[in-house]
Amino acid sequence: MLAGRFPPAGILRGPAVSASPATLPDFAKGDGMLPAIAQDADTGEVLMMAYMNPESYAETLATGRAVYFSRSRNRLWRKGEESGHVQEVQGVFLDCDADTILLKVRQLGGAACHEGYRSCFFRQVTPAGLAVVGERVFDPSLVYKK
Amino acid sequence: MLAGRFPPAGILRGPAVSASPATLPDFAKGDGMLPAIAQDADTGEVLMMAYMNPESYAETLATGRAVYFSRSRNRLWRKGEESGHVQEVQGVFLDCDADTILLKVRQLGGAACHEGYRSCFFRQVTPAGLAVVGERVFDPSLVYKK
Repeated sequence: MLAGRFPPAGILRGPAVSASPATLPDFAKGDGMLPAIAQDADTGEVLMMAYMNPESYAETLATGRAVYFSRSRNRLWRKGEESGHVQEVQGVFLDCDADTILLKVRQLGGAACHEGYRSCFFRQVTPAGLAVVGERVFDPSLVYKK
Repeated sequence: MLAGRFPPAGILRGPAVSASPATLPDFAKGDGMLPAIAQDADTGEVLMMAYMNPESYAETLATGRAVYFSRSRNRLWRKGEESGHVQEVQGVFLDCDADTILLKVRQLGGAACHEGYRSCFFRQVTPAGLAVVGERVFDPSLVYKK
Protein backbone atom coordinates (compact mmCIF):
# COMPACT_ATOMS: atom_id res chain seq x y z
CA MET A 1 0.00 0.00 0.00
CA LEU A 2 2.66 2.48 0.98
CA ALA A 3 4.61 2.90 -2.21
CA GLY A 4 2.25 1.13 -4.57
CA ARG A 5 0.96 2.33 -7.87
CA PHE A 6 -2.41 3.96 -8.09
CA PRO A 7 -5.19 1.39 -8.39
CA PRO A 8 -6.65 1.11 -11.87
CA ALA A 9 -9.83 2.90 -12.81
CA GLY A 10 -12.87 1.78 -10.92
CA ILE A 11 -11.21 0.62 -7.74
CA LEU A 12 -11.36 4.12 -6.35
CA ARG A 13 -15.07 4.56 -6.93
CA GLY A 14 -17.08 4.96 -3.80
CA PRO A 15 -16.84 6.85 -0.56
CA ALA A 16 -13.48 5.52 0.63
CA VAL A 17 -11.56 8.16 -1.27
CA SER A 18 -14.08 10.63 -2.56
CA ALA A 19 -15.82 11.46 0.70
CA SER A 20 -12.98 11.31 3.19
CA PRO A 21 -11.84 14.77 4.27
CA ALA A 22 -8.41 13.31 4.96
CA THR A 23 -7.85 12.62 1.28
CA LEU A 24 -9.33 15.83 -0.06
CA PRO A 25 -7.15 18.66 -1.22
CA ASP A 26 -7.94 21.97 0.45
CA PHE A 27 -9.79 23.52 -2.47
CA ALA A 28 -10.85 26.51 -0.39
CA LYS A 29 -7.23 27.70 -0.40
CA GLY A 30 -7.41 28.20 -4.13
CA ASP A 31 -10.91 29.65 -4.24
CA GLY A 32 -12.24 26.30 -5.39
CA MET A 33 -9.43 25.46 -7.77
CA LEU A 34 -5.95 24.09 -7.19
CA PRO A 35 -2.90 23.62 -9.40
CA ALA A 36 -2.28 20.05 -10.52
CA ILE A 37 1.08 19.00 -11.92
CA ALA A 38 1.23 16.07 -14.33
CA GLN A 39 4.48 14.15 -14.34
CA ASP A 40 5.38 11.24 -16.60
CA ALA A 41 5.24 8.20 -14.32
CA ASP A 42 8.08 6.46 -16.12
CA THR A 43 10.54 9.19 -17.08
CA GLY A 44 9.81 11.75 -14.37
CA GLU A 45 9.43 14.49 -16.97
CA VAL A 46 7.10 17.28 -15.86
CA LEU A 47 4.50 17.37 -18.61
CA MET A 48 2.13 20.19 -17.74
CA MET A 49 0.34 22.09 -15.04
CA ALA A 50 -3.38 22.77 -15.05
CA TYR A 51 -6.12 23.33 -12.51
CA MET A 52 -8.59 21.06 -10.78
CA ASN A 53 -11.82 21.81 -8.98
CA PRO A 54 -13.46 19.26 -6.67
CA GLU A 55 -15.53 17.79 -9.51
CA SER A 56 -12.55 17.23 -11.79
CA TYR A 57 -10.53 15.79 -8.91
CA ALA A 58 -13.32 13.36 -8.04
CA GLU A 59 -13.72 12.30 -11.66
CA THR A 60 -9.96 11.79 -11.95
CA LEU A 61 -10.00 9.45 -8.96
CA ALA A 62 -13.10 7.63 -10.15
CA THR A 63 -12.01 7.10 -13.75
CA GLY A 64 -8.22 6.89 -13.44
CA ARG A 65 -7.88 9.49 -16.20
CA ALA A 66 -6.78 13.06 -15.67
CA VAL A 67 -9.63 15.56 -15.68
CA TYR A 68 -8.85 19.23 -15.18
CA PHE A 69 -10.93 22.37 -14.98
CA SER A 70 -10.34 24.73 -17.87
CA ARG A 71 -10.27 28.28 -16.61
CA SER A 72 -10.53 29.73 -20.12
CA ARG A 73 -13.48 27.54 -21.11
CA ASN A 74 -14.94 27.49 -17.59
CA ARG A 75 -15.79 23.81 -17.74
CA LEU A 76 -14.39 20.36 -17.04
CA TRP A 77 -11.53 19.48 -19.33
CA ARG A 78 -11.12 15.77 -19.85
CA LYS A 79 -7.53 15.74 -21.00
CA GLY A 80 -7.38 14.19 -24.45
CA GLU A 81 -11.08 14.64 -25.17
CA GLU A 82 -10.22 16.20 -28.53
CA SER A 83 -6.82 14.73 -29.35
CA GLY A 84 -7.37 11.30 -27.86
CA HIS A 85 -4.16 11.81 -25.90
CA VAL A 86 -5.54 10.97 -22.49
CA GLN A 87 -3.48 10.67 -19.32
CA GLU A 88 -3.80 7.41 -17.44
CA VAL A 89 -3.27 8.22 -13.79
CA GLN A 90 -0.76 6.01 -11.98
CA GLY A 91 -0.66 7.91 -8.71
CA VAL A 92 -2.05 11.00 -6.97
CA PHE A 93 -0.06 12.92 -4.39
CA LEU A 94 -0.81 15.95 -2.22
CA ASP A 95 1.73 18.43 -0.95
CA CYS A 96 2.29 19.38 2.68
CA ASP A 97 -0.28 22.17 2.54
CA ALA A 98 -2.80 20.04 0.62
CA ASP A 99 -3.15 22.84 -1.89
CA THR A 100 -1.21 21.40 -4.81
CA ILE A 101 -1.86 18.07 -6.54
CA LEU A 102 0.73 15.92 -8.27
CA LEU A 103 -0.37 13.29 -10.77
CA LYS A 104 1.94 10.59 -12.06
CA VAL A 105 0.56 9.71 -15.45
CA ARG A 106 1.07 7.68 -18.54
CA GLN A 107 0.61 10.09 -21.44
CA LEU A 108 -1.05 8.37 -24.37
CA GLY A 109 0.01 9.68 -27.77
CA GLY A 110 3.37 10.67 -26.35
CA ALA A 111 2.64 14.39 -26.02
CA ALA A 112 0.93 16.40 -23.30
CA CYS A 113 1.22 19.79 -24.99
CA HIS A 114 -1.37 21.05 -27.46
CA GLU A 115 1.55 22.34 -29.51
CA GLY A 116 2.67 18.75 -30.05
CA TYR A 117 5.57 18.62 -27.61
CA ARG A 118 5.99 15.86 -25.06
CA SER A 119 5.99 18.46 -22.29
CA CYS A 120 4.46 21.93 -22.17
CA PHE A 121 7.79 23.07 -20.70
CA PHE A 122 9.62 22.81 -24.01
CA ARG A 123 11.28 26.22 -23.82
CA GLN A 124 14.32 27.00 -21.72
CA VAL A 125 15.30 30.46 -20.56
CA THR A 126 18.79 31.33 -21.75
CA PRO A 127 20.76 34.58 -21.83
CA ALA A 128 19.94 34.80 -25.56
CA GLY A 129 16.22 34.30 -25.04
CA LEU A 130 13.94 31.30 -25.07
CA ALA A 131 15.38 28.16 -26.65
CA VAL A 132 13.16 25.30 -27.75
CA VAL A 133 14.60 22.23 -26.06
CA GLY A 134 11.59 19.94 -26.12
CA GLU A 135 10.80 17.12 -28.45
CA ARG A 136 7.92 17.61 -30.88
CA VAL A 137 5.89 14.43 -31.19
CA PHE A 138 3.00 15.47 -33.42
CA ASP A 139 1.80 18.23 -35.73
CA PRO A 140 -1.06 20.04 -33.97
CA SER A 141 -2.79 20.85 -37.26
CA LEU A 142 -3.22 17.15 -37.92
CA VAL A 143 -4.55 16.37 -34.46
CA TYR A 144 -6.89 19.24 -33.73
CA LYS A 145 -9.58 19.96 -36.26
CA LYS A 146 -10.14 23.66 -36.05
CA MET B 1 23.05 26.31 -25.95
CA LEU B 2 19.98 24.34 -26.81
CA ALA B 3 20.00 21.64 -24.18
CA GLY B 4 22.66 23.04 -21.89
CA ARG B 5 22.46 23.48 -18.19
CA PHE B 6 21.54 26.82 -16.76
CA PRO B 7 24.56 29.09 -16.51
CA PRO B 8 25.85 29.51 -12.97
CA ALA B 9 24.92 32.51 -10.90
CA GLY B 10 26.12 35.79 -12.28
CA ILE B 11 26.16 34.90 -15.94
CA LEU B 12 22.53 35.81 -16.27
CA ARG B 13 22.92 39.25 -14.75
CA GLY B 14 22.15 42.08 -17.08
CA PRO B 15 19.55 42.91 -19.65
CA ALA B 16 19.94 39.91 -21.93
CA VAL B 17 17.53 37.86 -19.88
CA SER B 18 15.92 40.18 -17.43
CA ALA B 19 14.65 42.82 -19.84
CA SER B 20 13.68 40.78 -22.87
CA PRO B 21 9.92 40.38 -23.17
CA ALA B 22 10.53 37.12 -25.03
CA THR B 23 11.97 35.51 -21.92
CA LEU B 24 9.46 36.90 -19.44
CA PRO B 25 6.65 34.78 -18.10
CA ASP B 26 3.22 36.35 -18.60
CA PHE B 27 2.75 37.48 -15.01
CA ALA B 28 -0.43 39.36 -15.92
CA LYS B 29 -2.17 36.02 -16.44
CA GLY B 30 -1.74 35.24 -12.75
CA ASP B 31 -2.52 38.71 -11.46
CA GLY B 32 1.17 39.34 -10.96
CA MET B 33 2.07 35.91 -9.62
CA LEU B 34 2.65 32.58 -11.34
CA PRO B 35 3.12 29.03 -10.11
CA ALA B 36 6.68 27.76 -10.17
CA ILE B 37 7.46 24.06 -9.94
CA ALA B 38 10.79 22.97 -8.51
CA GLN B 39 12.09 19.65 -9.78
CA ASP B 40 15.25 17.88 -8.66
CA ALA B 41 17.65 18.33 -11.58
CA ASP B 42 19.27 14.95 -11.03
CA THR B 43 16.47 12.62 -9.98
CA GLY B 44 13.50 14.31 -11.64
CA GLU B 45 11.56 14.25 -8.40
CA VAL B 46 9.02 17.07 -8.13
CA LEU B 47 10.01 18.81 -4.93
CA MET B 48 7.50 21.62 -4.44
CA MET B 49 5.36 24.26 -6.02
CA ALA B 50 5.34 27.88 -4.98
CA TYR B 51 4.65 31.24 -6.54
CA MET B 52 6.84 33.83 -8.19
CA ASN B 53 6.25 37.47 -8.91
CA PRO B 54 8.43 39.43 -11.37
CA GLU B 55 10.83 40.49 -8.64
CA SER B 56 11.41 36.96 -7.35
CA TYR B 57 11.77 35.65 -10.90
CA ALA B 58 14.37 38.31 -11.71
CA GLU B 59 16.29 37.61 -8.53
CA THR B 60 16.22 33.88 -9.26
CA LEU B 61 17.77 34.48 -12.68
CA ALA B 62 20.31 36.94 -11.33
CA THR B 63 21.47 34.87 -8.37
CA GLY B 64 20.96 31.32 -9.60
CA ARG B 65 19.07 30.51 -6.41
CA ALA B 66 15.33 29.97 -6.21
CA VAL B 67 13.43 32.95 -4.85
CA TYR B 68 9.67 32.73 -4.51
CA PHE B 69 6.96 35.09 -3.36
CA SER B 70 5.28 34.00 -0.17
CA ARG B 71 1.56 34.63 -0.40
CA SER B 72 1.04 34.08 3.32
CA ARG B 73 3.86 36.40 4.35
CA ASN B 74 3.35 38.74 1.39
CA ARG B 75 7.06 39.13 0.73
CA LEU B 76 9.96 37.64 -1.17
CA TRP B 77 10.86 34.18 0.07
CA ARG B 78 14.47 33.29 -0.54
CA LYS B 79 14.14 29.53 -0.30
CA GLY B 80 16.42 28.29 2.46
CA GLU B 81 16.77 31.69 4.12
CA GLU B 82 15.92 30.13 7.47
CA SER B 83 16.92 26.49 7.05
CA GLY B 84 19.96 27.07 4.85
CA HIS B 85 18.49 24.57 2.41
CA VAL B 86 18.73 26.74 -0.69
CA GLN B 87 17.91 25.58 -4.20
CA GLU B 88 20.66 26.05 -6.76
CA VAL B 89 18.95 26.62 -10.08
CA GLN B 90 20.22 24.48 -12.94
CA GLY B 91 17.61 25.45 -15.52
CA VAL B 92 14.49 27.56 -15.99
CA PHE B 93 11.70 26.56 -18.35
CA LEU B 94 8.42 28.18 -19.38
CA ASP B 95 5.34 26.34 -20.49
CA CYS B 96 3.49 26.88 -23.77
CA ASP B 97 1.28 29.59 -22.29
CA ALA B 98 4.18 31.24 -20.46
CA ASP B 99 2.14 31.21 -17.29
CA THR B 100 3.89 28.42 -15.40
CA ILE B 101 7.59 28.23 -14.53
CA LEU B 102 9.61 25.06 -14.09
CA LEU B 103 12.90 25.16 -12.21
CA LYS B 104 15.38 22.35 -12.27
CA VAL B 105 17.26 22.66 -9.02
CA ARG B 106 19.84 21.13 -6.80
CA GLN B 107 18.31 21.02 -3.34
CA LEU B 108 20.91 21.66 -0.67
CA GLY B 109 20.28 19.86 2.61
CA GLY B 110 18.41 17.14 0.76
CA ALA B 111 14.91 18.30 1.62
CA ALA B 112 12.63 20.86 0.03
CA CYS B 113 9.74 20.50 2.45
CA HIS B 114 9.55 22.45 5.71
CA GLU B 115 8.29 19.22 7.28
CA GLY B 116 11.65 17.62 6.58
CA TYR B 117 10.73 15.50 3.57
CA ARG B 118 12.70 15.51 0.35
CA SER B 119 9.58 16.51 -1.54
CA CYS B 120 6.49 18.35 -0.36
CA PHE B 121 4.49 15.68 -2.21
CA PHE B 122 5.21 13.02 0.39
CA ARG B 123 1.62 11.83 0.73
CA GLN B 124 -0.14 9.56 -1.72
CA VAL B 125 -3.89 9.29 -2.12
CA THR B 126 -5.02 5.71 -1.59
CA PRO B 127 -8.45 4.15 -1.10
CA ALA B 128 -7.66 3.93 2.62
CA GLY B 129 -6.66 7.57 2.93
CA LEU B 130 -3.40 9.46 2.65
CA ALA B 131 -0.27 7.34 2.94
CA VAL B 132 3.11 8.87 3.73
CA VAL B 133 5.41 7.63 0.99
CA GLY B 134 8.13 10.28 1.11
CA GLU B 135 11.50 10.12 2.72
CA ARG B 136 12.07 12.27 5.80
CA VAL B 137 15.51 13.81 5.73
CA PHE B 138 15.53 16.08 8.76
CA ASP B 139 13.62 16.89 11.92
CA PRO B 140 11.95 20.30 11.44
CA SER B 141 12.23 21.16 15.14
CA LEU B 142 16.01 21.00 14.86
CA VAL B 143 16.19 23.13 11.72
CA TYR B 144 13.63 25.86 12.37
CA LYS B 145 13.99 27.82 15.55
CA LYS B 146 10.48 28.77 16.48
